[in-house]
Amino acid sequence: MTPNRRKVLSLLPAATVAGIASPAIAQTNPQIRWRLASSFPKNIDIMWATSTSISKYISEMTDGRFVIDTFSANEVVPPFQVLDAVAAKTVEIGHTPALFYFGKDATFALCSVVPFGLNVRQQHAWMYSGGGIEQLQTLFNNFGVVGIPCGNTGMQMGGWFRKELISKEDLKGLKFRTAGLAGTVLAKLGVVPQQIAPGDIYSALERGTMDAVELIGPYDDEKLGFHRVAKYYYYPGWAEGTAMTHLVVNKPLYDELPKSYKVALDVAAAAVTSFQLAKYDASNGLALRRLVAQGAVLKPFPQDIIEAAYAAWKEVVEELYAKNPLFKSIHESQQAFLVNNSIYAQIADFSYDAMMFRLMRSSR
Amino acid sequence: MTPNRRKVLSLLPAATVAGIASPAIAQTNPQIRWRLASSFPKNIDIMWATSTSISKYISEMTDGRFVIDTFSANEVVPPFQVLDAVAAKTVEIGHTPALFYFGKDATFALCSVVPFGLNVRQQHAWMYSGGGIEQLQTLFNNFGVVGIPCGNTGMQMGGWFRKELISKEDLKGLKFRTAGLAGTVLAKLGVVPQQIAPGDIYSALERGTMDAVELIGPYDDEKLGFHRVAKYYYYPGWAEGTAMTHLVVNKPLYDELPKSYKVALDVAAAAVTSFQLAKYDASNGLALRRLVAQGAVLKPFPQDIIEAAYAAWKEVVEELYAKNPLFKSIHESQQAFLVNNSIYAQIADFSYDAMMFRLMRSSR
Repeated sequence: MTPNRRKVLSLLPAATVAGIASPAIAQTNPQIRWRLASSFPKNIDIMWATSTSISKYISEMTDGRFVIDTFSANEVVPPFQVLDAVAAKTVEIGHTPALFYFGKDATFALCSVVPFGLNVRQQHAWMYSGGGIEQLQTLFNNFGVVGIPCGNTGMQMGGWFRKELISKEDLKGLKFRTAGLAGTVLAKLGVVPQQIAPGDIYSALERGTMDAVELIGPYDDEKLGFHRVAKYYYYPGWAEGTAMTHLVVNKPLYDELPKSYKVALDVAAAAVTSFQLAKYDASNGLALRRLVAQGAVLKPFPQDIIEAAYAAWKEVVEELYAKNPLFKSIHESQQAFLVNNSIYAQIADFSYDAMMFRLMRSSR
Repeated sequence: MTPNRRKVLSLLPAATVAGIASPAIAQTNPQIRWRLASSFPKNIDIMWATSTSISKYISEMTDGRFVIDTFSANEVVPPFQVLDAVAAKTVEIGHTPALFYFGKDATFALCSVVPFGLNVRQQHAWMYSGGGIEQLQTLFNNFGVVGIPCGNTGMQMGGWFRKELISKEDLKGLKFRTAGLAGTVLAKLGVVPQQIAPGDIYSALERGTMDAVELIGPYDDEKLGFHRVAKYYYYPGWAEGTAMTHLVVNKPLYDELPKSYKVALDVAAAAVTSFQLAKYDASNGLALRRLVAQGAVLKPFPQDIIEAAYAAWKEVVEELYAKNPLFKSIHESQQAFLVNNSIYAQIADFSYDAMMFRLMRSSR
């Protein structure tokens, strides 16, 4: 009870006090105003909507007492510095792909995606029911934040290539814009991984100073127009079977939140993860159809590239295991989950999808 | 503002008033206590946990002001009467598979699952981002309730059979316990669909008065021991590519809820849907491995049974379209979503899963 409140009550007869709002509410629901920095610009609109949706639901569920103002990439924090800004309390909360920080600790990649890893549904199941959220808190806490899974783009594509790939020899010297541990894998195959801002990619592809780019999937890629300058669009995206993003919250500030606000954040983050994935799932097929109509050429990766990338990934894993025990322990947890989940998934969902694709083709 | 509150404020100087809890809180957060009837018994533990999780999160997010007491099947309402009980205000809210009510209106099946329909992820995407929730409110409102998607078991199996199926001829006269529109489809193929309480299935299979049963999937089926009396376990479950359940809320009571409680229900329901699916995804693979170790024999349905079931389903759809415009309109919406989503799903997630299964097999 605030001193003011106590003073007021002492002035009033008991019968009148009963009509006043319960003091417990005033204590457990403090007015809080936070700033959220997103790693995404507003034109990556489904990702950006994840931040504004979190803000909206939290405000609505708390009757406007817990307010989160949202800022897109570079409005207050550059996209790759969201984690640091939250840890430093420059902003209280951020929305970011944790894999952006794999240079600080490779374990961050396991929050989002690693090559040849969990698919979208397995990533969610491992997070919510396979100990994922709990195991990753060690990592997030080491960097002064709490991490809450929030958002998934769904499976991403293998990338746009100016020239057709015939075999793994075609990877030698290829200048490829890619992210996360995929770059480490591809470097072993002779690729020269590139870091370049999204706004500069188109002209680099057009001028031929870059040969290939991997960004997200059909819905977002279409806006950037890569299909006009690098028409070969490769699948499956072996490096990104899922692509999860997180809310990162300054840990001391999170710890001070009343329980009701903590639960609201957790629950809203899980709901918005489903809503974001649903938007991508409702948008990617239509975008892919438009891209193909405009000349994009869909190609499966040659089998020897898949095999070589898988072998290179196993080497990368061994190197990481040798120097990072946390990565080892959490990657092993994901791998065990993948194997156990696949026992059912392959005769259930996978065989159902195979049946449906076959029936849809035959009934056209 | 309540009259009491107004009276109190008029006695106080303005500076002191500022220290009092906002009157908006007292008005917008009324104390509410509801009863939830589940269609599930407590030993179908993952489904039952969906009800108790909703109750827990809603209470925590509202600081104990919106309380939902949970009752399992038959504690206050029989499993197939949850919808009626909620409409009649016997209980305020229920958790139930809407397809239980397809006898009232076949459109209810589209809330949960129809044969050869959406898979799990497509069902969620259609609900959240394909207009599903909105379109289905017409149906729910016709029956005096509001429907909120809440829970999914994931893809279900095709069933346990006492004898191996060699061709569609083996379906003639088969006494098969199944649910929803699958029974209508199978009747066209000569099956005699059975309604029988779960507790009586085991002995009916053992005595041979029933030939086959379809219930849920490995995790739940294992507890009932069907593999000991009907060892052939068939896939893919063409009748249940997804299996969604709903919260149904008495409509007048829902409409009276403050906005913050409505949003809390929506958001918690979406989060718990992910959590429930995650638990099944973490459990079904391990259960399937145990079942096979105990003698269950996994079998794909013969191709001619799949083809015959698909043809029969198309007949059922035509019959339903002719007599139920709401079913037609909503099924067409789902089918359009299925086709558009599949354009990307088959080169993205499906080809990723195919690659992973192949790599896992070759690296054993």
